[in-house]
Amino acid sequence: MPEKIQAPKGLEGVIVTRTSVSKIDGERGKLLYRGYDVEELSRKLTFEQVVYLLWFGTIPSSDELREFDKDLFSKRDLMPDTLDFISRAPHAANPLVLLRSVTSLTGMHFDADKQLTLDAAKSLTPKFPTVLAYFDRIRNDRWLSRPSGELSTAENFLYMLSGQKPPKEHVDALNSYLVLLADHGLNASTFSAIVTASTLTDYYSAIEAAIGTLKGPLHGGAPSQVWEMLKEIGDEKNAKGWLERRIESGGRIMGFGHRVYRTEDPRSKVLKGIAKKVARPQIFELAQRVEETVRELLREKHPERTLETNVEFYSSLVLDAVGIPVDMFTSTFACSRLVGWTAHILEQLADNRLFRPESQYIGPEGLLLP
Amino acid sequence: MPEKIQAPKGLEGVIVTRTSVSKIDGERGKLLYRGYDVEELSRKLTFEQVVYLLWFGTIPSSDELREFDKDLFSKRDLMPDTLDFISRAPHAANPLVLLRSVTSLTGMHFDADKQLTLDAAKSLTPKFPTVLAYFDRIRNDRWLSRPSGELSTAENFLYMLSGQKPPKEHVDALNSYLVLLADHGLNASTFSAIVTASTLTDYYSAIEAAIGTLKGPLHGGAPSQVWEMLKEIGDEKNAKGWLERRIESGGRIMGFGHRVYRTEDPRSKVLKGIAKKVARPQIFELAQRVEETVRELLREKHPERTLETNVEFYSSLVLDAVGIPVDMFTSTFACSRLVGWTAHILEQLADNRLFRPESQYIGPEGLLLP
Repeated sequence: MPEKIQAPKGLEGVIVTRTSVSKIDGERGKLLYRGYDVEELSRKLTFEQVVYLLWFGTIPSSDELREFDKDLFSKRDLMPDTLDFISRAPHAANPLVLLRSVTSLTGMHFDADKQLTLDAAKSLTPKFPTVLAYFDRIRNDRWLSRPSGELSTAENFLYMLSGQKPPKEHVDALNSYLVLLADHGLNASTFSAIVTASTLTDYYSAIEAAIGTLKGPLHGGAPSQVWEMLKEIGDEKNAKGWLERRIESGGRIMGFGHRVYRTEDPRSKVLKGIAKKVARPQIFELAQRVEETVRELLREKHPERTLETNVEFYSSLVLDAVGIPVDMFTSTFACSRLVGWTAHILEQLADNRLFRPESQYIGPEGLLLP
Repeated sequence: MPEKIQAPKGLEGVIVTRTSVSKIDGERGKLLYRGYDVEELSRKLTFEQVVYLLWFGTIPSSDELREFDKDLFSKRDLMPDTLDFISRAPHAANPLVLLRSVTSLTGMHFDADKQLTLDAAKSLTPKFPTVLAYFDRIRNDRWLSRPSGELSTAENFLYMLSGQKPPKEHVDALNSYLVLLADHGLNASTFSAIVTASTLTDYYSAIEAAIGTLKGPLHGGAPSQVWEMLKEIGDEKNAKGWLERRIESGGRIMGFGHRVYRTEDPRSKVLKGIAKKVARPQIFELAQRVEETVRELLREKHPERTLETNVEFYSSLVLDAVGIPVDMFTSTFACSRLVGWTAHILEQLADNRLFRPESQYIGPEGLLLP
């Protein structure tokens, strides 16, 4: 029998699969999708182009893109049954849990076993923003705006949320956000998606597992907490005192540091630039002051740590500025990351092997019943 | 930086965690829960006693058990909203997907973030059989039997499915089945549950991930397929010809072999004894003939393989005999395995570290947009 390998806890530093979807270069602060730098992608491509790139590995030609856009845009609206489900959901429901439930429901209505992953993904991806926008309108007692068959993902989402044509700079900001967050190597939710998919279960099961994993505060829960923190500090002049008290009391400061990047997170850099354009100046100044103060305060205390803002810090400013409700920050993230999960699931299925690690038993043996 | 570890595909042979929940001794064909042999547990204990054992690590005293039973039995009925959801589900829905959806829905209605895992488990576990029984009655246009607050899990489930008091031998058979299937080390669904839980997400998210993983044919999908195979063979005298043709055409024969056991699966041995008591003699003889014939035919062809029946083979006879619909075999399995998932989630949370392995990038680099 081959020798067992004792892995570090949490599988830290353990390479469990090979991928050509994205590369994180933590030392240089670079993130590549299929070989392209995300900073460039976020400035130049639509989210739909990036979806195509992540799923198929190449930048679509204009003909390919036209067809792809048409296909996705035509699948935005929900089945009456799903809309009915959303309208019955408690208004206080966590929007991410609503997305998870709608995913499960959708899998129940389709013959999920027979539906190919790519077909299911093409159908589910354009519905995610619709679920969120419908829910937000319903819980606020407002008329629903049906999805457009023409507008880009970013523009359509903002239009459905607000019922109005959004300003171009908001559309561009949200488009860049969606591009930047679409994939990030083998993070916890993506790992969960491929573990689940590796039993050859259906697409919806794998996506649901990923959403449930993303929901955990150790993974996807922080952008709204950054926002709550900034709101609590309230004003630039309170920043230093607030942060000092927080650090002294051993509390966590949200939005700083990253497990992988040893330098600035490239997404954070782009998002800061976007936040400067779209956020209210007062908020942006406050955020910048917090960023500087945290760095200053922690540099002395923890010179070994990376004290750069992570992707969540300026995300929260961008999402708020374009009109995303604060309790939908993480679920808007899911609208984008769904694309990466899908790309990794497709890759897993193309060369599958069941994930079935082992555990070491450390309990008693040979006990007898009384 | 510490050196990276390149893990074998599927994490085969990689020990990712320590557990005191269950031990599989593949060489000797033994399975222990918390140190007790499952063969003995399945003969002597109620399923509820085993739930207690797996969650708390000890056999309950009679006082402890009385209170535990009372608590679980009082939580069997569903919220009106959940019942409404089930009554709207398509009659052709996969019952396992229904369980998954109900789990998600339940998590949406509770403040899942604030609910402790053990409380959530105590509430969800007794509802699983109710979901299945209600759904089966609804899709067959029959009156619902409300759950009893007195009967054991096995008796109550059969009572709710049939609307009648079940024979004692069926109750005992199902009780043993539920005991035998409640845990099995770090199988794929349990791994998925702890990966998801490790982000500190809520209980429902982790259970949903596990259900979605169990649904995959490489993991939990086979007991109904064993049954379909036996039905297709139909008669003992067809067994040899049918199996020869299947083997020649390279088709898979369901219910044989196991990744871990090198000898007989201990659960299979017990289930065979139970099947002999409760299954129709004609079916039992057919199954036995198939077992012998497969062993005979494959021993020559693949002398290196373990050709014992696995847990799924005689499970299918037992579940059918006691009145479980064939499309609910895997979801009945989930009613039992939910208990093991919960035990492993509790163990993970008691000494948590986020599962966050790495991937190796093998795609292109430095590409520039056209």
